Amino acid sequence: MNKKKIFNDPIYGLIRFPFDSIYEIIDHPYFQRLRRISQQALSHYVYPGALHTRFQHALGATHLMCRAIETLKAKDIEISDTEYESVCIAILLHDVGHGPFSHALEHTLASVHHESISLIIIKKIGEELNMDFTLVLQIFQGTYHRPFLHQLVSGQLDTDRMDYLTRDSFFSGVAEGIIGYDRIITMINVVNDHVVIEEKGIYSIEKFLMARRLMYWQVYLHKTVVCAEIMLISILKRARFLTQQGTKIASSEELDYFLRNSEASSSDLSNPDFLRHFVLLDDMDILWMIKKSVNHSDIILRTLCSKLLDRKLFKVKSVDNEVNRKLVADQKLKFMEKYGIDESETHYFFTEKTETIKHYETGDKEIMILMKNGEIVPYSHINKHLNLALENRTFLFYVME
Amino acid sequence: MNKKKIFNDPIYGLIRFPFDSIYEIIDHPYFQRLRRISQQALSHYVYPGALHTRFQHALGATHLMCRAIETLKAKDIEISDTEYESVCIAILLHDVGHGPFSHALEHTLASVHHESISLIIIKKIGEELNMDFTLVLQIFQGTYHRPFLHQLVSGQLDTDRMDYLTRDSFFSGVAEGIIGYDRIITMINVVNDHVVIEEKGIYSIEKFLMARRLMYWQVYLHKTVVCAEIMLISILKRARFLTQQGTKIASSEELDYFLRNSEASSSDLSNPDFLRHFVLLDDMDILWMIKKSVNHSDIILRTLCSKLLDRKLFKVKSVDNEVNRKLVADQKLKFMEKYGIDESETHYFFTEKTETIKHYETGDKEIMILMKNGEIVPYSHINKHLNLALENRTFLFYVME
Amino acid sequence: MNKKKIFNDPIYGLIRFPFDSIYEIIDHPYFQRLRRISQQALSHYVYPGALHTRFQHALGATHLMCRAIETLKAKDIEISDTEYESVCIAILLHDVGHGPFSHALEHTLASVHHESISLIIIKKIGEELNMDFTLVLQIFQGTYHRPFLHQLVSGQLDTDRMDYLTRDSFFSGVAEGIIGYDRIITMINVVNDHVVIEEKGIYSIEKFLMARRLMYWQVYLHKTVVCAEIMLISILKRARFLTQQGTKIASSEELDYFLRNSEASSSDLSNPDFLRHFVLLDDMDILWMIKKSVNHSDIILRTLCSKLLDRKLFKVKSVDNEVNRKLVADQKLKFMEKYGIDESETHYFFTEKTETIKHYETGDKEIMILMKNGEIVPYSHINKHLNLALENRTFLFYVME
Amino acid sequence: MNKKKIFNDPIYGLIRFPFDSIYEIIDHPYFQRLRRISQQALSHYVYPGALHTRFQHALGATHLMCRAIETLKAKDIEISDTEYESVCIAILLHDVGHGPFSHALEHTLASVHHESISLIIIKKIGEELNMDFTLVLQIFQGTYHRPFLHQLVSGQLDTDRMDYLTRDSFFSGVAEGIIGYDRIITMINVVNDHVVIEEKGIYSIEKFLMARRLMYWQVYLHKTVVCAEIMLISILKRARFLTQQGTKIASSEELDYFLRNSEASSSDLSNPDFLRHFVLLDDMDILWMIKKSVNHSDIILRTLCSKLLDRKLFKVKSVDNEVNRKLVADQKLKFMEKYGIDESETHYFFTEKTETIKHYETGDKEIMILMKNGEIVPYSHINKHLNLALENRTFLFYVME
Repeated sequence: MNKKKIFNDPIYGLIRFPFDSIYEIIDHPYFQRLRRISQQALSHYVYPGALHTRFQHALGATHLMCRAIETLKAKDIEISDTEYESVCIAILLHDVGHGPFSHALEHTLASVHHESISLIIIKKIGEELNMDFTLVLQIFQGTYHRPFLHQLVSGQLDTDRMDYLTRDSFFSGVAEGIIGYDRIITMINVVNDHVVIEEKGIYSIEKFLMARRLMYWQVYLHKTVVCAEIMLISILKRARFLTQQGTKIASSEELDYFLRNSEASSSDLSNPDFLRHFVLLDDMDILWMIKKSVNHSDIILRTLCSKLLDRKLFKVKSVDNEVNRKLVADQKLKFMEKYGIDESETHYFFTEKTETIKHYETGDKEIMILMKNGEIVPYSHINKHLNLALENRTFLFYVME
Repeated sequence: MNKKKIFNDPIYGLIRFPFDSIYEIIDHPYFQRLRRISQQALSHYVYPGALHTRFQHALGATHLMCRAIETLKAKDIEISDTEYESVCIAILLHDVGHGPFSHALEHTLASVHHESISLIIIKKIGEELNMDFTLVLQIFQGTYHRPFLHQLVSGQLDTDRMDYLTRDSFFSGVAEGIIGYDRIITMINVVNDHVVIEEKGIYSIEKFLMARRLMYWQVYLHKTVVCAEIMLISILKRARFLTQQGTKIASSEELDYFLRNSEASSSDLSNPDFLRHFVLLDDMDILWMIKKSVNHSDIILRTLCSKLLDRKLFKVKSVDNEVNRKLVADQKLKFMEKYGIDESETHYFFTEKTETIKHYETGDKEIMILMKNGEIVPYSHINKHLNLALENRTFLFYVME
Repeated sequence: MNKKKIFNDPIYGLIRFPFDSIYEIIDHPYFQRLRRISQQALSHYVYPGALHTRFQHALGATHLMCRAIETLKAKDIEISDTEYESVCIAILLHDVGHGPFSHALEHTLASVHHESISLIIIKKIGEELNMDFTLVLQIFQGTYHRPFLHQLVSGQLDTDRMDYLTRDSFFSGVAEGIIGYDRIITMINVVNDHVVIEEKGIYSIEKFLMARRLMYWQVYLHKTVVCAEIMLISILKRARFLTQQGTKIASSEELDYFLRNSEASSSDLSNPDFLRHFVLLDDMDILWMIKKSVNHSDIILRTLCSKLLDRKLFKVKSVDNEVNRKLVADQKLKFMEKYGIDESETHYFFTEKTETIKHYETGDKEIMILMKNGEIVPYSHINKHLNLALENRTFLFYVME
Repeated sequence: MNKKKIFNDPIYGLIRFPFDSIYEIIDHPYFQRLRRISQQALSHYVYPGALHTRFQHALGATHLMCRAIETLKAKDIEISDTEYESVCIAILLHDVGHGPFSHALEHTLASVHHESISLIIIKKIGEELNMDFTLVLQIFQGTYHRPFLHQLVSGQLDTDRMDYLTRDSFFSGVAEGIIGYDRIITMINVVNDHVVIEEKGIYSIEKFLMARRLMYWQVYLHKTVVCAEIMLISILKRARFLTQQGTKIASSEELDYFLRNSEASSSDLSNPDFLRHFVLLDDMDILWMIKKSVNHSDIILRTLCSKLLDRKLFKVKSVDNEVNRKLVADQKLKFMEKYGIDESETHYFFTEKTETIKHYETGDKEIMILMKNGEIVPYSHINKHLNLALENRTFLFYVME
């Protein structure tokens, strides 16, 4: 192993990690698999640069964690080497349980949250590399007695969010999403083992929250992005239906496992078969199935796959408009007639979807501000203009022939 | 079609093209295929951000072409709308003939230069979209009577190079490769229908040439990048050998076509079968084959594929060192014994490769400088320190068990 | 004159203007004077990089104007060459009436708004260069029959604001102030001769408004910046008092003119003496007076000047705190005693100041959005979270011995 | 004092220093004076953004020093806290002896190198702040037994150069000058108490040297920049001549001291009068004299000052051209006649100047490379294309009426 190995990150420049264990874990095939899991699924259909992967994100979030810990140490917060190393491993592996296309297929392939899968993979890597992950797991699960370490991995202002917002914004070319991670990290502190932000940093938080909101509406929930992901989900659903019916499709053995089984639930996690197939699954399995199905005998699968492959996407209309509703209804009838498709099968081509974002969470997960006078105040008490309402939007997505 | 469509490029920001035809071509499946052809093959094994594709590069080069043409028009060079549109289409499609992993497999899959394939695909797209590409083809081939248009597509300072150096440098995170395209474009002019650079721009050219050289040594010919590409080529060679021997491997029909046929030569380009299979081939076919072959019965294929997939790369040593040569020779013997492999098959795992770059070409392709006094002088006459020698380096690449 | 002259701007890169007249005006001494008028007065005491001048800002705003006009022409808005040239001259000269330290001394030296002074200087430049500025003046004053041209010079989303927010953010190093001018300009359109923003641009406007607000609180109204400017104003007031009393201070003839006369009012603008002295006045006159007065016999002037020169700034406390109020009151008494200063003179060293910002203006000046369906809707109807309230903060500023 | 004070640098972002002493020194009036000493004299006449000062540069270079020291400590080089603090103070104060307009007037005002003046000011600050600067002075003068500390302050790859090249390039907007300081610092190491660069960094050095050369030709020695500086020197020379003749000019007492005395030599450094006047002198004194002399009775001073103030610069021609030589000679005759000026006085308006740069120094100051095999090799042995020749250019500068 080469402790001095340097990664060249287009965002942060030269990155180096302070622990050998980090490099060993990166070399493990379960981690290398993240090179084949795109960070933003099909966003690149709208933002061509957004081809980055979970692999890069995991390295980036770990780098920010190192910077946060170094900053805290410079502020005289006591952090042991084992705590430092463990929080780094926890963030490095926080997304190792993501499946193909990350969130886009998260509840289609298996009805288990990716963090539950991360947990079992982390344990497995610990065993295989013969490393003691007790502390890593405590930090990851939030059971360690110093909560700030968990909060830096998973909170409203964690290094995960800081990296993905920065990274997604960078690769998408959406400048509105730049969050100023540098300034936020400079303002982090710890009081009574909880993360706080120094008062000077309140504008940086405001900017962070706003940038996050803009990233949601402009990128993650951009209607064309959502449309491509709806098509992807339709394809998977159809593939599962066909597989379970006994129709052969171009799926790998791993993918076949998830198609044959109806959505795996959390109880399946303990099944070694689940894990064995899961760690072999990546974007390639899905892309291959799509590419190979453009001439499939099933008209639904074939149509969906060839449209998605050549980027002939569904149309999208705002739902709160009678004219649109009528147009889509007419289109559906025409489509059924033309392709001899039953009403019950039209959901593959016609759907309505509501997207919701939560701007900020009060309560337990509040961002806490350390005032100059030493008081600690929830951010929502300081920023009176803070938007706490859920925002949502509904669209009709439909095929247009 | 939506003339106003805007692309969000992480490098240039919002991009819009002035011709409807550009958008029509972008929507064509042959062009959409470029989304699945990586620009820099396996560079991402060293530079994790370098996942960008030929699709982005083609859009970027076309954007720079628009900027160059607008600059020339502002300098009162007469350029007709048809010339403008045609040179844009020529640059948009200049790389449409690239196969999987671009240059890495260029002479392994088929022994034809990608530009020859581009030419036949351009013709085909013209026919399918019912567009008259006479002028496009003349510009692309350099037969049009105004050479500057061809020079902007393909020369020592063309918009192709300007984009790929900028783009590869951006996504790799190698700041040394920044070329300052903005300044170069500002300094472009045309005299007697030939591209010239205004005298003020000579430092920008110096920087451009130096940045290009650094990109070659630091990225394109980085020894670990070359190593990964050598492994990729070995895999393809073994796959072809097995296929022709009758051993089944996990290849798609398209890939199978290229494996069964020994390397296609230029005469094959007129064979409609060649084109039909080629336009369906992309990185997915190769990646799939690799992923599915990690358990193949052939030990050579299996070893190469699983090593490449999990990034267990060959070692590399400088050739001009007796100790290294000895070490590799010993390693080869051990390897033959351990795996029962014949000397004649060791080339899949042990090889020596020389990489060469040409810093600058004099002669016909010289960069010409327009001096303040109106004279036109070859750049090599101005820059006396210009390095005209070929530079090369040779390395041993070998498997280490 | 050299039409091809290129300016190198650290923000926009190489800038070139399309009209010879622009270059002639830049060369005029009244415009060159802007090289000696700092854009952000004493902000550099907090943000050391913020040394840029009105000269750079005027060039930058003119560059953005060219980009806006070119964008509109590409969208088929008819704009004549004379309109184009005139709107460029109007923006180039919009700030030519700024006096030393721009806004900081605007109402201390002369009680006239800088735009009124700009107006008379524009006329004067037109006469001296023998250029017909009829249309320039109409656009500048908002009397031309095509309001969009005035709106681009002076509105809620004009090229003045776009440049100064971008520029001040760049030189201050306050990343939160980045507004994304590029995207806003891309989204500008004109309907019925009024500026509108295309619907796609609403997030960019949100970001713009938020960035503007952050720039106000973090930079323009940063309490230490305000403090330095209060000290500067105190110095000017004391200098005027002494001058009118007959005490000699180190003022240039030009500055002396403004000190002797009590604050000039708009009626004075027609007095040729006013203009003659004004165009000779710049930051140097003030800085010199301060530097030369550190040993002046008047203890008030001397103390203020030496403190400001060596950056020994007043302290600042929040006003809504009884402890602070008491502390400042005590300090005042001590100070009076120590320096033998009368209560009526303490205002030079003790003051309270309220800063207010207006987030967004509804009514006439509304930003109008061009919806995809062609409707035009005020931005405040779309963004329900828009903060329309005035925000303000009050601080006590006081000398601490 | 406030140890936590953060500076906002447009280049490096938020800067914080690890020692209280740094903040104390920054607050000292001798250091605050650097706010009024421009880094690049009159470069802003060509590059309007280049208004930055020695103050910013000193902070920036100190920041890079901290980064370099932290990097070395992370590589297990032992550096004591006192060494760390002292090398920071040495770099912070390395330029404190610069006079008005930095290098431009360095040998006109006083014939002493600015480093000699820095030395006496450093001693004085140490005394006034009651700090022991023994080690600081050893490091500054290169007499400490660990040479790498001096090399980081002053060598071919010191943090001074790294900052000023980066900073001048940033504020000028000359992208060619970007040197990649980040990567260089990452590659710094220390062997036997000497600075070395790790082999991986050789391309970064190549880029550094090239960027430096481009900055010289494009910025520091840009002929219009040189022209403005020649005019400035002419003004000072004339002002000295007039002062010594008994003619009154608008000079401050400090400036007067330097005009009355013929160029101070190193022996004058021990004269307390010298230092007393020097620390009060800054750009303001010169600018004021120029501004106030535009109507002086001396035609030479008046003409030079008003031309420089309004940026009516001399013309420049290449010297190796008979036509140019003739033109300038004619112009000189006309000028003498028109203004009744004697041949012996024409040097104020007509001059010839040669500018020289040294690309790289071999010998003692060589950049040393630490090869992967542990050998240490001079950089000039590795880069065979390294340009070791002096480059120079000569121009005629002349007034044009």
